Amino acid sequence: MSDNAIPVVTCPGHIGHRPQVEVQCGRPIVAFDTVARMSAVEQALRGDDRVRMQPPSADLAVSGLITRVHDPDLVEFLANAWVQQSGPGDDIELIFADTFAHPGLHAPGTATKRPHQAGAFGRYCFDTITGVGPDTYDAALGSVATAVTAAAHTLQGVPLTLALSRPPGHHVSTDVFGGGCYLNNAAITAQWMRDHGADKVAIVDIDFHHGNGTQAIFYERGDVFYTSLHGHPDRCFPYFTGYADETGYGAGRGTTLNVPMPEGIEGPQYLARLESTLAATAAQRPDAVIVSLGFDTYRSDPAGDALLNTVDYFAVGQAFGQLGCPVLAILEGGYAVADLGANVRAWVDGAAGTNASYPGAVNGHG
Amino acid sequence: MSDNAIPVVTCPGHIGHRPQVEVQCGRPIVAFDTVARMSAVEQALRGDDRVRMQPPSADLAVSGLITRVHDPDLVEFLANAWVQQSGPGDDIELIFADTFAHPGLHAPGTATKRPHQAGAFGRYCFDTITGVGPDTYDAALGSVATAVTAAAHTLQGVPLTLALSRPPGHHVSTDVFGGGCYLNNAAITAQWMRDHGADKVAIVDIDFHHGNGTQAIFYERGDVFYTSLHGHPDRCFPYFTGYADETGYGAGRGTTLNVPMPEGIEGPQYLARLESTLAATAAQRPDAVIVSLGFDTYRSDPAGDALLNTVDYFAVGQAFGQLGCPVLAILEGGYAVADLGANVRAWVDGAAGTNASYPGAVNGHG
Repeated sequence: MSDNAIPVVTCPGHIGHRPQVEVQCGRPIVAFDTVARMSAVEQALRGDDRVRMQPPSADLAVSGLITRVHDPDLVEFLANAWVQQSGPGDDIELIFADTFAHPGLHAPGTATKRPHQAGAFGRYCFDTITGVGPDTYDAALGSVATAVTAAAHTLQGVPLTLALSRPPGHHVSTDVFGGGCYLNNAAITAQWMRDHGADKVAIVDIDFHHGNGTQAIFYERGDVFYTSLHGHPDRCFPYFTGYADETGYGAGRGTTLNVPMPEGIEGPQYLARLESTLAATAAQRPDAVIVSLGFDTYRSDPAGDALLNTVDYFAVGQAFGQLGCPVLAILEGGYAVADLGANVRAWVDGAAGTNASYPGAVNGHG
Repeated sequence: MSDNAIPVVTCPGHIGHRPQVEVQCGRPIVAFDTVARMSAVEQALRGDDRVRMQPPSADLAVSGLITRVHDPDLVEFLANAWVQQSGPGDDIELIFADTFAHPGLHAPGTATKRPHQAGAFGRYCFDTITGVGPDTYDAALGSVATAVTAAAHTLQGVPLTLALSRPPGHHVSTDVFGGGCYLNNAAITAQWMRDHGADKVAIVDIDFHHGNGTQAIFYERGDVFYTSLHGHPDRCFPYFTGYADETGYGAGRGTTLNVPMPEGIEGPQYLARLESTLAATAAQRPDAVIVSLGFDTYRSDPAGDALLNTVDYFAVGQAFGQLGCPVLAILEGGYAVADLGANVRAWVDGAAGTNASYPGAVNGHG
C-alpha cells in the first residue's frame, strides 16, 4: 500500500440484495446477480498490495444525488415497492412486474398515468428479470454511494479508481429500471462530477449489454459523452436500443457512439473495436472517463456470447490506462463467478500499467 | 328452432389454444383461459330451443380482415412466434415475453426498431399473462372468423346474435397484444361492418377489464363509438388505460366513454351505470351494437372484484335487448367456469326478451 495506491471502494450494503430467481421467457430461473459475484471480486483484490480498499462515505446525501438524473416518481416507487406490492403474509422473496406500460397500450393522445397500486411496477420496470426484495432499494442506494465515493478520487486527479458497485446500474433510464439494475450508478456519478467541477465527462460502457439507461439519460446532452460496445440488439438484451444509428439528439447530437458486436467475438476483434471507441472518447477531451465495467463479455459468461479470455481483460485495461485522463471504473455485469475475480484483477493490472506477465498478452496498446 | 332463432356461432379452433400457465408477478400460475370455459358455454346453449348453432364460415378470408385494424408486423409476429421463439427440442408448451418495449427504454428521438429475433416478443406484447403455443395463432384466426360470421347476421338485421369467440380479443391494439388476447375480434368485426354497409357501429364492452385495445384502435375515429364499464385502472388490469378522462381524440373526440368502477360493485349499482352507458350508446344512433361480453364481473370470478349474480346478467341482457338496434355479442372473459354457462344463458334470456322467471330479477329495464 502506498500513496499511489489504487482506491477501491467497496459496497457493503449489496448483501441485502439477494435475488433468488429471475424470470426469463415466463420461467423462473436461478438469478444471475448473486452476492457471490462481489465476494469473488473482493477476494481477488484484497490481497493486492497496489489497492487501498475503503467503504463508501457514510455522510453522502445519496437521495439528493439520484434525483439529479432519476424521476422522483421512480425513486419513490423503488423506495416503497416491497411494502406496497407484496401482500401481508406473502411467502415470496422477490416481486416482479407482469403488466408493462407499453406504448402500444395507449390510445393516441393519452399519456401513461401513474397508478398508485397494482400496475405501478410495470410503469417503472421494463422486464421480468428485475425483481425487488425487501432490501433491494437500500442496496441500490449503497451501490450509488460506492460509485460517488470513488468519483471523489477521480475528480482529485487519481489516475485509476474502482467502485465495486452492486447491484449494477446502466440499464436504468430517467424513469424506468430493468436488466437487474435499479439506480444508474454511472449516470448519477457522471452528473455528480459535472456538478463538482468536471466540464466534460465520458462514459465508456463495456458491459456485454447495451446501457440503454445511461444512453437515454444523456442522449440530448453535449456535456456527457456515452459510448458502448455490446452484443447487437437484434439478438441481445435489452433488444430495443444500442443500434449504431443512435448517435444523440439535439444538443447531444454526435455524443453517443454505439458499437454493436456480432456473435462470438474474440479478443483481437474486440480490442480493435475498443481502440477506435477509445480514440473517439479521447477526442472529446473529457475531464474524466467513467467505465461501465462489465465482465459478461467473458468466454464462459452465461449472459453473453462474446469470447474474451482473462488475458484480454489485461489488454482492455491497458487501453484505458493509456487514455491520459483519470479513469473511474464502476462494476456492472459479469456472471461467470469462478473466473470473475481473475478477470477483474487482469483488468486492473492492465489499467494500472502493471508490467504483469500475461501469457499470450498482446504487447503495448491493444 | 325457428326462423326467429338466435344465431350462435361456435369456435371449433379454440381447442388448439390450451395455455397451461400464465405468469403473474413473476410466478407461473394455472392459466385462466381454459378450453373448459367454452365447453361450459356451449353446453349451456346446446339444449336451448331458441338458438341455432353454426360453425364459422369456411370461406372467410380472415387474413385480409385482420390487417384492416392490425399492423401487419403484429400479425406476422403472431404467425411465426412459436417457430421462431421456441428452440428446437424445447420441452415448453408456451412461450412468454420477458423484456418489453417500454417507452422509458428509449432515448428521446429514437423509435422502437423491429428486432427480428429474441426481443420481438416484448415489442408486440405488453404482459406475461399471454403465452403463445403452437396453435395459438390458428385459434386466434378462428376466433375472428367466429365473430365475423356472426356479424353477417347482424348486418342483415337479426336482432340478437352470439359469437362464441375464444381466445378473447379486446386487449389487442393496432400492434400490441396481451391480456390473454391475440387478435381483436370486436374491433375487426366493427371494421368489417363498416366495410360492409354500416355507417356507425357502437361497441359496448362489459368485460370486467378495460378494453384498451379496442379503445386505442378507434380512439381517433368518429365512426365507431366505444364505451366500457370496468374495474378502475388504479387497481385493475390492464392498469394504464380506461380512466374517465379518456374520451377520444381528433375526429374521435367524444366517441369514447369510460366508466371505471369501484371495488365490490353489486348488481343494482352496476345496472345503474350500464343504463346511462347504454343511453349514451343509443344517442349515437348506431346501425349495430357489438357487445364485448365478459362474465368476469361475476361474484366468484377469480379475475375481477365485482359482485354480480347470475340474475343480474338477465337484467344486463334485458338492457341490451331494449336498445332498439341489432346486437352482436362477442365473448370476451369470464373464468368462473362452474357458473359461466348459467350466466351466459341468463344474459341471452334477458337480451332475447324471454319472459323467464328469474328469482330476484329486477322488473323491466334495469
